[in-house]
Amino acid sequence: MTYSPNIDIAARVYNHSWKIDPVVRSLIDTDFYKLLMCQFILLKHPKTEVKFKLINRSYQVPLAQLIDRKELEDQLDHIRTLRLSKGESTWLRGNMFYGTRSMFSPDFIDWFENLRLPPYQLEVKGDQFELSFVGYWPEVMLWEIPALAVLTELRSRAVLRQLGRFDLQVLYARGMTRIWEKISQLNQLEAINIADFGTRRRHSYLWQEWCVQALLAGLGNKFLGTSNCLIAKRLEVEAIGTNAHELPMVYCALAENNDTLAQAPYKVLEDWQQVYGGNLKVILADTYGTQQLLSNAPSWLHDWKGIRIDSGVPEEMGEIAIQWWKQNNQNLEDKLLIFSDGLDVDKIILLYNQFSKRVKVSFGWGTLLTNDFRGFLDDDELAPISLVCKAISAEGKPTVKISDNPLKASGPPELIDHYKSIFGVKNQKVQEVIV
Amino acid sequence: MTYSPNIDIAARVYNHSWKIDPVVRSLIDTDFYKLLMCQFILLKHPKTEVKFKLINRSYQVPLAQLIDRKELEDQLDHIRTLRLSKGESTWLRGNMFYGTRSMFSPDFIDWFENLRLPPYQLEVKGDQFELSFVGYWPEVMLWEIPALAVLTELRSRAVLRQLGRFDLQVLYARGMTRIWEKISQLNQLEAINIADFGTRRRHSYLWQEWCVQALLAGLGNKFLGTSNCLIAKRLEVEAIGTNAHELPMVYCALAENNDTLAQAPYKVLEDWQQVYGGNLKVILADTYGTQQLLSNAPSWLHDWKGIRIDSGVPEEMGEIAIQWWKQNNQNLEDKLLIFSDGLDVDKIILLYNQFSKRVKVSFGWGTLLTNDFRGFLDDDELAPISLVCKAISAEGKPTVKISDNPLKASGPPELIDHYKSIFGVKNQKVQEVIV
Repeated sequence: MTYSPNIDIAARVYNHSWKIDPVVRSLIDTDFYKLLMCQFILLKHPKTEVKFKLINRSYQVPLAQLIDRKELEDQLDHIRTLRLSKGESTWLRGNMFYGTRSMFSPDFIDWFENLRLPPYQLEVKGDQFELSFVGYWPEVMLWEIPALAVLTELRSRAVLRQLGRFDLQVLYARGMTRIWEKISQLNQLEAINIADFGTRRRHSYLWQEWCVQALLAGLGNKFLGTSNCLIAKRLEVEAIGTNAHELPMVYCALAENNDTLAQAPYKVLEDWQQVYGGNLKVILADTYGTQQLLSNAPSWLHDWKGIRIDSGVPEEMGEIAIQWWKQNNQNLEDKLLIFSDGLDVDKIILLYNQFSKRVKVSFGWGTLLTNDFRGFLDDDELAPISLVCKAISAEGKPTVKISDNPLKASGPPELIDHYKSIFGVKNQKVQEVIV
Repeated sequence: MTYSPNIDIAARVYNHSWKIDPVVRSLIDTDFYKLLMCQFILLKHPKTEVKFKLINRSYQVPLAQLIDRKELEDQLDHIRTLRLSKGESTWLRGNMFYGTRSMFSPDFIDWFENLRLPPYQLEVKGDQFELSFVGYWPEVMLWEIPALAVLTELRSRAVLRQLGRFDLQVLYARGMTRIWEKISQLNQLEAINIADFGTRRRHSYLWQEWCVQALLAGLGNKFLGTSNCLIAKRLEVEAIGTNAHELPMVYCALAENNDTLAQAPYKVLEDWQQVYGGNLKVILADTYGTQQLLSNAPSWLHDWKGIRIDSGVPEEMGEIAIQWWKQNNQNLEDKLLIFSDGLDVDKIILLYNQFSKRVKVSFGWGTLLTNDFRGFLDDDELAPISLVCKAISAEGKPTVKISDNPLKASGPPELIDHYKSIFGVKNQKVQEVIV
C-alpha cells in the first residue's frame, strides 16, 4: 500500500531522534503502596541493607533471548536518571489520599525529591536475566515496580515488533473489545468495587492508562482508583494500596531469635499503625499463613479495617477472615475484604456473590486487566508471564515467604521448614499460579 | 480528565477552518459498475432523460429529523464542485481492469473530465427527505452512490455526535473486532472469493477503507477487490463490478409496445456485449424474474461468463442458474455465480458449501461488511438502514422492477401487474429485506 495520509513531519522527525522510547518516565509510575511503605521504612528502618531480585516464574519464556541486553540496560539506566518532578512533588504534598491530607510528610517528600535509584546488577544466566538491587531498603524497594514494568513491556515490544501496522491495530481493537466486555460484565454487579492493581505486569504503560480510562468510563463510582500514582495523578482518580509482603519478610529476616521471629509479623502491624491509621489499617495476612496469623493475633488487631487476601483459595480465606472477626465480636458490616490474587471476571463475580452481602468487598484487579492479550497471537506469545521482584535478603540474612499456596513460597528450603514450624503452618492446598 | 498529550496545534487549527468535513471527496468515490454503465449509456442512450429518486425503505428511521437539512445541502453542493482529478483520470486511462487495458475509452474519459454533476431537488416530507435528480441518464446516474453515501454517513455522524471520545474509541474497537472475526471465519473456507460491495451503505468512507484493508490483510488472494474506485486506486487493489438493474429498467420504460418490452432485457445484454466482453459478460437476471429471463433467453446468452444473484432465495436461484447452464450444455466449471444480496458470514458459508464444488462462486459483500455496528448502541441507533436511489422514470415514463422478492418490487402497482403478465412472473417467495 503506497497511500500515506497527511504525515506530521515535525512529529516524525522528533520521534526519529529518540534515543530510546522509555518504558518508565516518572518515579511515581509505581504502585502507591510502595510510597506508603517507603515512608514507613524511612521512619523505622532507614539504614537496613536489603537485596531485591527479579525472578521469572514462567521459566519457559526465555526473556534473555527475547530482549536485547543493551535495550534492557538503556531502560534501567534511564530510570536511574529520573527525579521527582515539581508537579509530582506538589501532587504528593497537596493531594488527598484515602480521605487524608498530608499523607506524606515534608521530610519524606524532601528525601524523595533528592532520590536517585541505586545501581543495579544485571547478568544473563542461560535464557534468563539475573537482575538484582542491593542497598538501603527504602531506596532499593523502589526498584521493584519499574524493574517489573520494564521487563514486561520490553517483552511485549519484542513480540509486537513482528507485527505490521494493520495487525497491531486489530490486536489493540481486540484487546479493547475484550476489556470492554469484561467491564460490562462487572458492571452488572450492583455494588462492585474495583481498583486497578495492574502496574507491575502491564502490557505497556499506555495500555494500562487506557484500561484505567475504560474502568472509569464503564464503572463510574464502582471504580475505586488505580494503584499507579502517575496514572492517578494524570486521570485525577484515587491512588489505591496499603502494604505488601516485603515488610513481614524483612522484619522476620532481621529477627534475632525464635521469639522475635514469631512476633515479627505483628511488630510490622504495630509499627504500621503508629504511622498510618483508618483505612490504611489493612492486614496482609498470608505471608506465613492466614489462619495462623489471625488465630494468634493480639486483640488490638481486631478493630483494623480489613484484610487483604493474596494467596490460597480465596473463597476459603475470606471465610477464615469472617470467622475471626465474628469470634472477636466485630461488626462485619464495617469490615473490608480485599481480594488481589490472580483475579479475572469469573473469579470476581464468584467472590462478590459469596461475600458482598456480609462484609464490604473490594477487588484489586491486576494482570488480567492490564495484560490480557491471551489467544490473540500464534503460540500465545503475548500471554502474561509470572514475573516477581522480591526482597531476598536483609542484612545478609535470607528472607522467607510461605503464603497460603505452596507454589508461592520463597526462600531457602531449610529456612522455609523452620518458619513453618515457628508459625505452625501445616497442610496447604496447591493453587495454580497464573500470573 | 485534564491531561492532553502533545497536541498538534497546526492540525487542530486547520481542522477548525473546515467549512464541512466532506463525505464524498472524489468523483471516483463510487462503484466501478457505475462507470462501466455510464460509458455504456453514453454510447447507447446519451440523451435519454431520467429521474432518479432516493427512497428510505427503513421508514421508521426519521432521517429528516436526524440530519440537518443545511448539512445535507452542504454535502450535496460539495459533490457538485468535484471534478475528476488528474491522478484519477490517469488511473482510469492507465489501469488494468478485469485483465483489460483501456477499458475506458479516451472519449469517455474526456467527457468525465468535464463532468459536473447536475442539480438535485431536495424537499422534506414528514420525517423523510425527498431527494431526486433529473437530467441526462449518464449524468444523473452518477448521483446514485454519492447520494446514498452522504445520507448514510450523515446519519452515522448524527448518532455518533452523542458519544464521547472514549465511547467512540470503544465503538470502533468493537467494530474492528467484529469484522476481524468475520474475516477469520471466512478465511477458513479454502477457496472463497470475496469482494467489497459496501460503498453505498457504508458507515463512513474511512470505515469502508479500513474494512477493505482488513479484507486484504485477512484474506490475501481470496480477496478479489472492491467496488469502490477511489479505494481501489488508493490501496492498489482490483476494482470490481459489472452492471445493475437500472439498465433493463430504463430500457423497459422506453419500450413502445409489449413486444419490445418483452425483448428489452435481452436488448440490454445484446448492447452490453457489443461494448464489453469476457469477464464483464455477467447476467443480472432478477429484474423481472430470474426463471423467466433464463427460460426465454436467446442462445447467445448461454456462453456468458456468469450470473449475479441479487434477490430471491439465493440457494434456489443458484440452482435455477445451474439448471439452465446444464440444459444448454455449458461446462459448469467455467461458469460463475456472483451472490450480492444482503450477505453476511453465515449466508456466505452456506452458499459456498452449496455451490463452490460445482461452479465458480464469488461474493459481493456489502452493507454487513461496511456498516455492521448492530447491537453496539442503545436502541441500535447505528443499525444499517435500507436506503436505495433508483431510476424511477425515463422520458417521463415510470420504471418497474419486480425482482425475485415481492418486497423489492418498485413502480406503479398497475404497471407492476402489466410487467408480471408480460414476463410471466407468478408466485414469489417473500424474503425479509435486511439492508
